[in-house]
Amino acid sequence: MVPSDPPAPPLRRRGARLRSAVLAATVDVLTEHGLAGTTVGAVARAAGVHETSVYRGWGTRENLILEALSEQADAALPVPDTGRVRDDLAGYFGTLARLLATPQGEALLRLSAERDDTLPDRRLPYWTDRLDRATVMVRRAVDRGELPPDTDPVLLVEALAGPLFTRALISGAPLDETLATRLVDLVLDGASAPKPGA
Amino acid sequence: MVPSDPPAPPLRRRGARLRSAVLAATVDVLTEHGLAGTTVGAVARAAGVHETSVYRGWGTRENLILEALSEQADAALPVPDTGRVRDDLAGYFGTLARLLATPQGEALLRLSAERDDTLPDRRLPYWTDRLDRATVMVRRAVDRGELPPDTDPVLLVEALAGPLFTRALISGAPLDETLATRLVDLVLDGASAPKPGA
Repeated sequence: MVPSDPPAPPLRRRGARLRSAVLAATVDVLTEHGLAGTTVGAVARAAGVHETSVYRGWGTRENLILEALSEQADAALPVPDTGRVRDDLAGYFGTLARLLATPQGEALLRLSAERDDTLPDRRLPYWTDRLDRATVMVRRAVDRGELPPDTDPVLLVEALAGPLFTRALISGAPLDETLATRLVDLVLDGASAPKPGA
Repeated sequence: MVPSDPPAPPLRRRGARLRSAVLAATVDVLTEHGLAGTTVGAVARAAGVHETSVYRGWGTRENLILEALSEQADAALPVPDTGRVRDDLAGYFGTLARLLATPQGEALLRLSAERDDTLPDRRLPYWTDRLDRATVMVRRAVDRGELPPDTDPVLLVEALAGPLFTRALISGAPLDETLATRLVDLVLDGASAPKPGA
């Protein structure tokens, strides 16, 4: 990278606008028509651009879908760093619960449960990527001495995300505000621990 | 029930054989063709019986599907009662993990994630019924004083089942033998508790 780069020329600024329009259109088409209905043609029509522009920018339909979903989720699901693992987890999984309670959030979860023969391992890595990122909250807590060194960050994150995914996909039980907090308390303190003041 | 009932007459025994053949065929058709492909006609063909016999016995396609799935799951997923909640939960969720690792188990889970406009609330209550039944292990532990009276049995069961469902539906991570035991230890003891011998 050259520090003295001049401001982006008009062509590149048009490129940035095209990029965000195509990525937003991809999320719209995915939410409305599912993975199978998300073709490069459908996205190009929704974004009002030529198909060739999409192929030029992303190469394949799969690259396009993955980039659109990752970008959207990273914006919607920031990983907090408050210095207290309980607050970090309650914040992150509270946001996740609210996201899954929206029609778009549920649709994105359903996409990850679909099998698609055009994808490398037939699964969208969208949610698994999000859960991988969430383990950093647990790793930081271990580094601070807040959690024991033998803590399994993946298992802890799965125990928090799994019930939220299950409510969205299987049971339809409400993804209410307090659910994430109650799950964090359960997983950090354990069911068999005496409750403070109980 | 009348204790002096005579042995079932031939007609009724034929009925029992028909019933089990139709229910087994229903599970086969569901596993192979999904919810949408499970019509009364397809089940009747697979069982080698007349469609009218299926309608006479079950009334609707929905009743047939629900009875077939419930019967199968109750046989495959018994609720243990060892007197120790840790062993009960590890046994039950270990069996569930092994069931979900089979193609048939994964197919049954996918059915519950599908939406079907012909069902009362558009969801198969198959897995939610199973989780409801599993809460009895937690309730018994509260009655024995093994867990505190303010324990939430539904939340505890969700924290154990959710990660298993997530691995089967979303991440594809292995449903190995030790997973259920590690989850039970996490949810009963809590991540922040010091481990014995650690």
